[in-house]
Amino acid sequence: MIYSFHELVDSVKNAGRRIAVAVAQDAEVLIAVRKAADLGIVHPILVGEEAQIKSIAAELNISLSGMEIINEADKVEACRKAVKLVHDGDADVVMKGIVDTSVILKAVLDKDIGLRESPVLSHVALFGVEGFDRLLYITDAAMCIAPDVEQKAHIINNAVKVAHALGNENPIVTCLCAVEKVNPKMQATLDAQELVERNKRGEIAGCTVCGPLALDNAVSEEAAKHKGITDPNAGKADILLVPYIEAGNIFYKSLTYMAKAQNAGMIVGAKAPVVVTSRADSDETKLNSIALAIAVAANKA
Amino acid sequence: MIYSFHELVDSVKNAGRRIAVAVAQDAEVLIAVRKAADLGIVHPILVGEEAQIKSIAAELNISLSGMEIINEADKVEACRKAVKLVHDGDADVVMKGIVDTSVILKAVLDKDIGLRESPVLSHVALFGVEGFDRLLYITDAAMCIAPDVEQKAHIINNAVKVAHALGNENPIVTCLCAVEKVNPKMQATLDAQELVERNKRGEIAGCTVCGPLALDNAVSEEAAKHKGITDPNAGKADILLVPYIEAGNIFYKSLTYMAKAQNAGMIVGAKAPVVVTSRADSDETKLNSIALAIAVAANKA
Repeated sequence: MIYSFHELVDSVKNAGRRIAVAVAQDAEVLIAVRKAADLGIVHPILVGEEAQIKSIAAELNISLSGMEIINEADKVEACRKAVKLVHDGDADVVMKGIVDTSVILKAVLDKDIGLRESPVLSHVALFGVEGFDRLLYITDAAMCIAPDVEQKAHIINNAVKVAHALGNENPIVTCLCAVEKVNPKMQATLDAQELVERNKRGEIAGCTVCGPLALDNAVSEEAAKHKGITDPNAGKADILLVPYIEAGNIFYKSLTYMAKAQNAGMIVGAKAPVVVTSRADSDETKLNSIALAIAVAANKA
Repeated sequence: MIYSFHELVDSVKNAGRRIAVAVAQDAEVLIAVRKAADLGIVHPILVGEEAQIKSIAAELNISLSGMEIINEADKVEACRKAVKLVHDGDADVVMKGIVDTSVILKAVLDKDIGLRESPVLSHVALFGVEGFDRLLYITDAAMCIAPDVEQKAHIINNAVKVAHALGNENPIVTCLCAVEKVNPKMQATLDAQELVERNKRGEIAGCTVCGPLALDNAVSEEAAKHKGITDPNAGKADILLVPYIEAGNIFYKSLTYMAKAQNAGMIVGAKAPVVVTSRADSDETKLNSIALAIAVAANKA
């Protein structure tokens, strides 16, 4: 099982998987894939405007050696071509370059050249927080706005596959709420109860679902004990399911900006992970995200 | 203006305000009020079962000197008596002892002996986060489950009064969302837009309301600049309005458990602040919370 980003990056060194970068004419993305290529993690296939890619690389002194370039000036077409590479088995992972996420996701969801698999695409973020002995998964902080219980079940399944790929065979999934008791006025607690039951009935498999729990009692055994919570999985969360996008987004950003935690993220639920780093991400986060996607893709293959 | 908890506690040393503790027969609460009394912040009036209060104090070697005791074994009655002390002007602040928050709030909302003022009672948490040059207010992480825009306006007003009491005459209130653009599928962004307009029309006064902004662009000027956000108040938030209780609760606890931030909290919107520390709070948090409530009460008087 992988317990840290250091171990994660190490685990995919020399994996040599193919990453198709959609609309690759972007300095920051080129820097990230160059670093990943230098570590042997990926063989990049850059889909985009070739002249621009070459001029950006030259300007920043980024070597393009070992990288394939597919010249495509149109951004929609570049996304479709990058996704189709994965669809056809010619790449393992797709990564967003300088294009809106919605454009690449449209290609991912295309019935002919796309990568549809789960009924729900969701975002999984991985965090390494100081003082924690394991990586924490947060889902969904970026894709699903206000998922119903059905969508939450898919979001859990999507995240569980990531945990499995990282060697955690039975992750603890905690449905985060503001309280520990089911309260009909709080939909998140009702959904938590239902998701726990579905897990007990085997309808959500490969993990142990618990909740409702507030964050302190989800991640701290000491806090849970102090509060007299008897759930044996309290304090042991691996995957933290948030009730709505705002809760996840605020959580994600508080860990990044206030707890200074290391992180990685990607979109899952398609046949291959989609790496969607943002400009605000550090170089480290971008490398971690590529490593995470490759670990998941390698586990699938 | 008060920029840190150190300054906050300093500002109320020797304030000598009266704090009525409801159901005071609790070791942790007695430790906290003793410490606050020793600093001259409060004169405690302990309402509860006198024999138990004395035996707990004796066992823990806590001196009760300078503290008044009102013997009342019944918890509901003890809450009502403590609240009535504030109602009658015989105390400045009420603090919850070993009783459910709902019981004390029922007394606070009582038409005869209570402390009704704003149409909405809300929770305000104050955080000192490493790397930040100011205290951050989070509201509402503990009381209002899913406030509508009307309730959010009251929640803002309640928090703004706290900021004023701490010398921040025009706090920046940021309506936290997952995105920066108004999106009809995201109620939080619609509410943010409406609250900004109400502030511009002067219906929400004493502050500058902005948003929708995600947390990074709310608190980091660098992040906002990086993302090309033109709102001059981006990155400068004092008060962070969360869209619903789970977002606030997760945020609050991520700051406490993961960012190891110092904090204080209380319920506002009544004629006097209500201190509702929990057993999980550190001694420091309890003292900070008493100091915060006293600063607010002293500003009112």
